[in-house]
Amino acid sequence: MSPVKVFGHPMLTNVARVLLFLEEVGAEYELVPVDFVAGEHKRPQHVQLNPFAKMPGFQDGESLHIKSRAIAKYILRKYGGTAGLDLLGENSGIEELAMVDVWTEVEAQQYYPAISPVVFECIIIPFIIPGGGAAPNQTVVDESLERLRGVLGIYEARLEKSRYLAGDSISFADLNHIPFTFYFMTTPYAKVFDEYPKVKAWWEMLMARPAVQRVCKHMPTEFKLRARTRCLCTPRGCVPCRAGDDPTQEKRPPSRGWVIICPSTSSIPFQFQQHEESACASARASPDSLL
Amino acid sequence: MSPVKVFGHPMLTNVARVLLFLEEVGAEYELVPVDFVAGEHKRPQHVQLNPFAKMPGFQDGESLHIKSRAIAKYILRKYGGTAGLDLLGENSGIEELAMVDVWTEVEAQQYYPAISPVVFECIIIPFIIPGGGAAPNQTVVDESLERLRGVLGIYEARLEKSRYLAGDSISFADLNHIPFTFYFMTTPYAKVFDEYPKVKAWWEMLMARPAVQRVCKHMPTEFKLRARTRCLCTPRGCVPCRAGDDPTQEKRPPSRGWVIICPSTSSIPFQFQQHEESACASARASPDSLL
Repeated sequence: MSPVKVFGHPMLTNVARVLLFLEEVGAEYELVPVDFVAGEHKRPQHVQLNPFAKMPGFQDGESLHIKSRAIAKYILRKYGGTAGLDLLGENSGIEELAMVDVWTEVEAQQYYPAISPVVFECIIIPFIIPGGGAAPNQTVVDESLERLRGVLGIYEARLEKSRYLAGDSISFADLNHIPFTFYFMTTPYAKVFDEYPKVKAWWEMLMARPAVQRVCKHMPTEFKLRARTRCLCTPRGCVPCRAGDDPTQEKRPPSRGWVIICPSTSSIPFQFQQHEESACASARASPDSLL
Repeated sequence: MSPVKVFGHPMLTNVARVLLFLEEVGAEYELVPVDFVAGEHKRPQHVQLNPFAKMPGFQDGESLHIKSRAIAKYILRKYGGTAGLDLLGENSGIEELAMVDVWTEVEAQQYYPAISPVVFECIIIPFIIPGGGAAPNQTVVDESLERLRGVLGIYEARLEKSRYLAGDSISFADLNHIPFTFYFMTTPYAKVFDEYPKVKAWWEMLMARPAVQRVCKHMPTEFKLRARTRCLCTPRGCVPCRAGDDPTQEKRPPSRGWVIICPSTSSIPFQFQQHEESACASARASPDSLL
């Protein structure tokens, strides 16, 4: 039995990040499912692992860790050496190490805020409307794409000078782009990357990595509707879809707040049943924690 | 002349973060003012330093760096050794280093999103309304305070076990809380910290540090109105305040978007003059980049 346990679902971006680095270094690990639909991440057993009631939880023997980026660094430091990987640049000089830090921060503070609203508008928000009737907020999408193009333009210039973001070797910074960009590439706006040939080639290099492919196969690329078995929970209440509801008929929840989604094509699918409204409060999850 | 140059204004949180770590390690540096009111951060001279047109820019001899957290780590690695500081925990074991990473991520992803809306609602948004007539959105404030209390409760439990967040020694994680918490403490909700005695004591320990005091003296604690010389710029246009405007009369900008603010009590004050609407587009700054 491996001492390393990851608690969560592999479709969630923060869980995928941790799995990605475990796969990169070739560490053995055990994935322990957390049924977030049933609210298991908010129960004492999980909160003991992660006081913020977020996923993933992470255990390495007696040692508990939280925050996916911090866990990823821990994995690289503890297990990366035997794999001959220096993704953090810590075996290089101060300048090389600084470049990994810079592009890791750029991903978190420039790239993610630009790309994530498109994914929310095109995948998550339409998905949470039973019947799939919600159109993306085109203003939000357009503004985010404009911002994303600005970021990708800077990436393009950077990737004309080096093979990867922090230099000619792949680093922690590059791989942190995987989870959310993977979902962006399932939206109608994936072709934005075609405008930036160096960025596109960089992305294809990342996706060609066996470790990346092993992790991404657990991330759904289609979010089909299951209106008959789905229940929308928001802070203002719950809009359960009853058996016999017409799945083509739109049924709006009272707000775009907390929701449960059910990915129908995940290779480790979460199926969940209709439940009473009173059961929803403990079961709700946020879009942020889902993707 | 020092090889280290910081380009920006010390009231901005990201500039303050960099100055804080320079002061902690006792490195010599030169602060080069960037007149963001005049849009200097968007001009080619600054964009050469920082392609994202953000502050600070940072130069160490021939080496250029961006992203305040990455710059701070670079400073600690390059200059921290001579000061006998190991704020990143890199001279400790993997577990200790991981704790610094964990609490650094917690600050960025749990603490900042909880505390920052209160600062925006109580300081920045009211300030941008000439005449100071805008009331904070109490729903946003209350929700953020509830979220902040949840985070502070976890901090309290943590600080019952160790003197600082990552252990019994001060670290990078603790000091990253300084810039935004400093501004929160100027709001009417500063007393929330009184509910968490360990957190309050921790904050007072941080504020007692000479390096922290040297940096914070350049951060304003009052944002007085200067309606007669202020100009509000938003993405939708510009609402200049004319000489002779009644400063007690509220004048709403067309949106709560991009604005210029003028801190009247900064010890390195930015005074700016009325200007024509056509001059505003290049001069606008965002609240995010300001505090």
